[in-house]
Amino acid sequence: MQRIPARIGDRVDDIETPALVVDLDRFERNIERMAQATNALRLRPHAKSHKCATIAKSQIARGAVGICCQKTDEAAAFVDAGVRDVLVTNEIVAPRKIGRLVDLARRATIGVLVDALQPVAMLAHAAQRAETALDVYVEIDVGARRCGVSSGDAVVDLARAISDARGVRFRGLHAYHGAAQHLREPQARAEAIAVAAGIARRLRERIVASGMRCDIVTGAGSGTWRFERDSGVYDELQPGSYVFMDADYARNVPAEGDVRFEQSLFVVAAVMSVPSGEQAVVDAGLKALSFDSGLPQIAARDGIEYVKASDEHGVLRVVPHASPLALDERVWLVPGHCDPTVNLYDWLVAVRKGVVEDVWPIEARGALG
Amino acid sequence: MQRIPARIGDRVDDIETPALVVDLDRFERNIERMAQATNALRLRPHAKSHKCATIAKSQIARGAVGICCQKTDEAAAFVDAGVRDVLVTNEIVAPRKIGRLVDLARRATIGVLVDALQPVAMLAHAAQRAETALDVYVEIDVGARRCGVSSGDAVVDLARAISDARGVRFRGLHAYHGAAQHLREPQARAEAIAVAAGIARRLRERIVASGMRCDIVTGAGSGTWRFERDSGVYDELQPGSYVFMDADYARNVPAEGDVRFEQSLFVVAAVMSVPSGEQAVVDAGLKALSFDSGLPQIAARDGIEYVKASDEHGVLRVVPHASPLALDERVWLVPGHCDPTVNLYDWLVAVRKGVVEDVWPIEARGALG
Repeated sequence: MQRIPARIGDRVDDIETPALVVDLDRFERNIERMAQATNALRLRPHAKSHKCATIAKSQIARGAVGICCQKTDEAAAFVDAGVRDVLVTNEIVAPRKIGRLVDLARRATIGVLVDALQPVAMLAHAAQRAETALDVYVEIDVGARRCGVSSGDAVVDLARAISDARGVRFRGLHAYHGAAQHLREPQARAEAIAVAAGIARRLRERIVASGMRCDIVTGAGSGTWRFERDSGVYDELQPGSYVFMDADYARNVPAEGDVRFEQSLFVVAAVMSVPSGEQAVVDAGLKALSFDSGLPQIAARDGIEYVKASDEHGVLRVVPHASPLALDERVWLVPGHCDPTVNLYDWLVAVRKGVVEDVWPIEARGALG
Repeated sequence: MQRIPARIGDRVDDIETPALVVDLDRFERNIERMAQATNALRLRPHAKSHKCATIAKSQIARGAVGICCQKTDEAAAFVDAGVRDVLVTNEIVAPRKIGRLVDLARRATIGVLVDALQPVAMLAHAAQRAETALDVYVEIDVGARRCGVSSGDAVVDLARAISDARGVRFRGLHAYHGAAQHLREPQARAEAIAVAAGIARRLRERIVASGMRCDIVTGAGSGTWRFERDSGVYDELQPGSYVFMDADYARNVPAEGDVRFEQSLFVVAAVMSVPSGEQAVVDAGLKALSFDSGLPQIAARDGIEYVKASDEHGVLRVVPHASPLALDERVWLVPGHCDPTVNLYDWLVAVRKGVVEDVWPIEARGALG
């Protein structure tokens, strides 16, 4: 467990580095804007972005029906912290993981995805033994080409198997298009989600035509949620990253009239070496930030650029004539990708107007199982 | 804190996925081979690779003089676990971090680097107040162009400042060439280290000519250590990754007669979806492996390839006519880069001949401060 990097009341310059920091004013505006923009539908934010029960409860307090997560251990962390409705947006097929899931279902509403028949029987059997029930959604492939089924026959077969089994309740379709979230042009995102919504509509119609109910089509992420919202097909939206944003989401060109979310998440680093006027080195590298979506950006300071990372070093280039960096000077970095960056930290330092207001545990950090 | 993914005596197929696993036979051969190959010099393995006190103690039991690490919190984790000699191969300039360092120096031999004058005074002052002493090394830039000084005058000035101050002991030069570790051709690595050793020799001579001792030149990594060993300049070697190896080190072309280290570290994942005969999806993505040095490789199984990662999914491509993957089937992945992958896990499952022999805590996971 990491040392707590700050105390309530500390000034931000006293936070020990590197630290994961959220700007509360921006964060709260993000929560509020998404709540308002989605209030005609069910909002079930994805908690894989923040892994933090304090944030999940803020979202639920502002109207979210519950949260999503990806792993049974994440679900356990949130249920243990008092969240009462969790959808695991993933196929869970390992017997021990299924065992944990049905244990959680005795304390909370727990949903899970299937894209094959065999796990339906396993989920049903485990839920019956635990004298509980699971909500089950059929994952459909709406263009991401990852998990999920796509043929009408396969979807109807799965819906039928779930509907016919005891211990599992067929709730609807999971229709998430991950690959569309980072299409840079709004038109490309709109077109991808139009296709996704068309597939979801058609498959729901097949289920209904087969004599079953299909109450919920759920999906969407922070890059596309307004298109799913306006599709007339989706009942529930799952954006997660909007609470924080990151350098990669900032590269998406917004659509006209898009709700604006603010960068609220930062890694605060400190300069530990200034080998020349053109270079400084900070204490945050590959173990302090995730680099899968590119290098971090520098917040609130001109003339420096993060150009290279090694395990525990970040090399900054200082442009000519920029003011030089001093030893131990703080540098606020915008992570390239918020989700895996958050997963590196046990604590999230919540600041407002330059002062530490709270330090939140990231309960589901490392919850891989 | 993550759930412990296995119990002693479990068969490897019962380890909960994803899990970080070390093959003990291979690991022990790696430890032994490095100990033998470096027995004419001081071996101080870098513990930033494994962050695990059990492994540090194995290395020390087999002759290592102590360990290296990168952060004061790493040093604290190892000292708390009983390691008595730790070199922090980094500039520590923040007052509170220096405070922790001198506290540790009351319980263990603690070394640290400097590449500027101001921290020398801070380290000396803090050590005197704590009534202890720190070993201090001047970091020289031998080609990595990261931290460190390179001019003879600057090195002599720093050595003099350390030698003249109370509370700090000038121990020598830190001469690590990180950028040379992954040069693919052995000739390129040899040439880079020849240059590095030449710089270190010249700067040591400057210090000695100025009337000071310069006892230790320390450096080297798993990609180049035999060149530093054979240079006649280096007194102490710091390889770390050799205990585990990874996909990126495997891309280095070995030099003739190189000591061979075996891939001992794996992330064991499980199949959670088989959407088609050509594709399977495992439960290990960006939060289970570090992708900064490329995608993981598949161990011990032909016909499948890890082609794409998202946060919690890894997409495998199955070549035509390969045997298909089954739900919940285990897949052993070789991480692209071992160090930041280890940093994602709280536990390392130690296996031998298909059985879990032990589960080791990764005490310094997340130790960023």
